[in-house]
Amino acid sequence: MKVSNDIVMTYLVETDGSLTDLATKIASDQSTGTFVPLPGETPELKARVAAKVLEMRELASASVPSFPQGKPAGTVYKRAEVDIAFPFEAIGYDLAALMTIVVGGVYSIRGFTGIRVVGMALPDGFTRAYPGPQFGVRGSRALTGVFDRPLIGTIIKPALGLRPHETAEIVKELIESGVDFIKDDEKLCSPPYSSVKDRVKAIMPLIKDHEQKTGKKVMYAFNINHIDLDEMMRNHDIVAAEGGNAAVININSIGQGAFLALRKRSQLALHAHRNGWDILTRHPGLGMSFSVYQQFWRLLGVDQFQINGIASKYWEPDDSFVASFHDLTETMASEREQPMPVVCSGQWGGQAPETYARTGQTLDHLYLCGGGVVSHPGGPAAGVRAVQQAWQATREGIGLDEYAKTHRELREALDKFGALGE
Amino acid sequence: MKVSNDIVMTYLVETDGSLTDLATKIASDQSTGTFVPLPGETPELKARVAAKVLEMRELASASVPSFPQGKPAGTVYKRAEVDIAFPFEAIGYDLAALMTIVVGGVYSIRGFTGIRVVGMALPDGFTRAYPGPQFGVRGSRALTGVFDRPLIGTIIKPALGLRPHETAEIVKELIESGVDFIKDDEKLCSPPYSSVKDRVKAIMPLIKDHEQKTGKKVMYAFNINHIDLDEMMRNHDIVAAEGGNAAVININSIGQGAFLALRKRSQLALHAHRNGWDILTRHPGLGMSFSVYQQFWRLLGVDQFQINGIASKYWEPDDSFVASFHDLTETMASEREQPMPVVCSGQWGGQAPETYARTGQTLDHLYLCGGGVVSHPGGPAAGVRAVQQAWQATREGIGLDEYAKTHRELREALDKFGALGE
Repeated sequence: MKVSNDIVMTYLVETDGSLTDLATKIASDQSTGTFVPLPGETPELKARVAAKVLEMRELASASVPSFPQGKPAGTVYKRAEVDIAFPFEAIGYDLAALMTIVVGGVYSIRGFTGIRVVGMALPDGFTRAYPGPQFGVRGSRALTGVFDRPLIGTIIKPALGLRPHETAEIVKELIESGVDFIKDDEKLCSPPYSSVKDRVKAIMPLIKDHEQKTGKKVMYAFNINHIDLDEMMRNHDIVAAEGGNAAVININSIGQGAFLALRKRSQLALHAHRNGWDILTRHPGLGMSFSVYQQFWRLLGVDQFQINGIASKYWEPDDSFVASFHDLTETMASEREQPMPVVCSGQWGGQAPETYARTGQTLDHLYLCGGGVVSHPGGPAAGVRAVQQAWQATREGIGLDEYAKTHRELREALDKFGALGE
Repeated sequence: MKVSNDIVMTYLVETDGSLTDLATKIASDQSTGTFVPLPGETPELKARVAAKVLEMRELASASVPSFPQGKPAGTVYKRAEVDIAFPFEAIGYDLAALMTIVVGGVYSIRGFTGIRVVGMALPDGFTRAYPGPQFGVRGSRALTGVFDRPLIGTIIKPALGLRPHETAEIVKELIESGVDFIKDDEKLCSPPYSSVKDRVKAIMPLIKDHEQKTGKKVMYAFNINHIDLDEMMRNHDIVAAEGGNAAVININSIGQGAFLALRKRSQLALHAHRNGWDILTRHPGLGMSFSVYQQFWRLLGVDQFQINGIASKYWEPDDSFVASFHDLTETMASEREQPMPVVCSGQWGGQAPETYARTGQTLDHLYLCGGGVVSHPGGPAAGVRAVQQAWQATREGIGLDEYAKTHRELREALDKFGALGE
C-alpha cells in the first residue's frame, strides 16, 4: 500500500450520502481546499501538495449510524475503507502537523455518519526523525536481568490514599517475593499526601538494599506525571538521581509534545499508561484504531506500552488486546528498538496459558498484575509467586491445575480468582 | 453544585445494567478500588481520598446504545446524569492527574453503553494555580486597537501549497483592506516549502510597514506548531523577535503539557485551533462536552479560542456553537482574563446578524473568515470590506439586504455566498 514518499492513510467512512464525494472531500479539505473554489489553487500547487484518493473498498452497509442522525428507520448507511495519499511535501516530519492534517481535521467534516482512522503507512524517514524507544524490549530485559520469561510486575494498591511510608511497607514485601517490576498506580501522581520526592526517598533505599544483597534490581516505575513539564522533569531527575530506572507516564493526559520533550532528556524507561484512549477506540465506527495510535507513541519513544490483557477488568474484548499485541510486535521500518508490550488489567496468572497461545508464544512482554497480586490470600508476595508459577507452568506446557498440585500459591490463586471469572 | 474543596464532575451515563452500580463503580475505580477488595483500604484512607456519588438524575432511556452492543431490539438503555465528588486531597492541582482520574480512567469502565463527561466544577484554587490567558479579550483588543466592534480576521488560503513570497502577496492585499487579524491555516505548520522563519521574514516587514504608515498593526498569527517543543519555542522566538504578536496552536496535536510549557514562556497571543476535538464531542452520548474541555484550555492559557459559527462548513449544529460561545464567556472563579471566542468556519459576513442575536449581542469576539474573504468576487480586500459592512449593518440594526444597497462589496458577497447557503 505504501507509495513512494507519500503518507498513506486508511479511513473507515460511513454515510447515507455519497462515499465517493466524502472520500474526495477528505483529500480536498485536508490539503488545498475550503468551502469555495479559490483563485490561488493552481494546478502546479495542487500537484505539489494535494492529497489523492488511491482506492476505495466498499464494505457491508449498516442500518444504525455511528453518529446518531435522527433519520427514519430503514435509512441505509454505506461504509467503505478509503486509502488516501498525502504528499510528504505537504506535511514534513512534524507529527503534530501530521496529526492535524490526516486525523484532526477529518473528524470535523460534515456528511459522515461515522469516521475512523484505521491505517497509517509512513515513509521510512519518519522513523529516523524521531527518537523511538530508548530501552524497549531489550533495554527492559537488560535493566531487570530477566531474559528467559516475561517480566513479572505488580502495581501498588490501593490506587490512592497510601502515604509514602505505607507504600514502602508494601514495596518491601513485594521486593522480597522476587518480583521484577513494580509501579505506582497511574492515578497516584504527586498529590499533597504523597509527593514523588517522598516516595522516591522511601522506596529507592529498599530497592538498592535488595540489589546489594541479591544482585537483583527491581525496576520501580514512579509516576512522575505532571502537566507542568518543568515539574515532570524535576520528578524525573529525582528518580534518576536516586538510582531509579523507570517512570509511569499517562501519555494522553500530558500529550504528545510534552512526552517527546521528556523523552529527549529521559534516562528512565518510560512506561506508558494510555488512560483516555478508550473513548477514541471503543466505538468500532468512530475514532482511531490502536494500529495507528501506537505508531505515534512508539516514534515518540514509549518503552513499555500498556495494552490490557485476556479477560481484562475493562470493556476491551480479548480479540482487541490480541490485535494490539501484534501491532506492537510488528516492526516499523528502520526502527532501532521495539517497545515492550505490557499485558495488564485484571491479570493474576490464570490468563498466562491463553496469553501465551494467542500472542505467538512469545515471552517478550511485561505481565502486570495489581489486585491479582496484592489481594492473594497469602499476601502480595504469595501473589507474585503464584504468577511466577503460572508462567513457569505455561512455558513447560503444563496445565495450571496440574502445576498447582505441587505449588500452593498458584493453587490459592486459582481458588480465589479463578472463581471470580466463572 | 460545588461542595467545599471537592472537584465535582457530572457524567452522562448509559447502561442496560444498573445505573447505581455504575455510578458507584466510577467513584470506587477512580479513587481507591480495583477488581477485588484490598487489605490496605482502611476506613481512614477512604475518608481521605475516596470519591463519592452526590446525586443521580435519571433521564429518558434510549432504545439504541451509544456504543453498539449487538443485543436484541427492545433492550432498554437507561440514562442518567451523575454528580461525583473527588476530594482535592486525592488529586492536587495537577491538571494531568485530574484528567487521568476524573476523565481518562472513566472511559475504560466495563458496563457502560455510553459515557460522556458533561460538567466540571473546580475549587477556586485551580484558577490561581494556572496562568490562564495572557491576552484574552482585553489584550487582543489592546494589541489590535479595535474596541467598538468584533475583530475581523481572515485566513490565508489555499490551506497548503503557497510559498512564502506567494503568501506575502496575499497578505499585502489583505493588510490594505483594513483587516484586523490574519492567520496561517492550521494545516500549514512548517513544511519544507514554507518554514515559519521564511514566512515571518516575508510577512512581518509588510505588517510593520503598514503600522508605520497608518498606526494600525495587523495581528498576524503564525502557525508555530511543532511536536518538538524546542522547535516550537524557536518558532515562537522568531515571531517575537520580528515584532509578531500572535501564534496559531493546534492544541490537541501538541497536547496540554506542551501548551502549558509554551504559555509559560510565551510573548504571543495564543490562538487555539481545536482540530481533533470533534471526535470527542460529535456523538452526544460519548466523550466530553465543550463546557468541560474549554476549562482545561483556558486554565492553561488559550487567548483566542476557535469555536465555529452559525452555518459553519463543518458538522457542528448552530446550537452547539452558541452553547460554546456562552461557555467561553462564563467567568471561572478568580479568573484574571477571559479568552476571546473566535467565530469561524464558513463565515463571510452573512451570519453576522444571527451571530449577534444569539450570543447576547456582544461584540467581544474575533470574527474569522477564510474562503468567505479570499474568494469574494472583488478579491480578498473586497471580501474584508464586505465583512466589515455586514458587522456595521448589524451594529446599527440595519438588515444586510438594505445595507447592501449602498455597499457594493456586501452586495457581491450576498449574491455569491448567500446563494450557497440556500
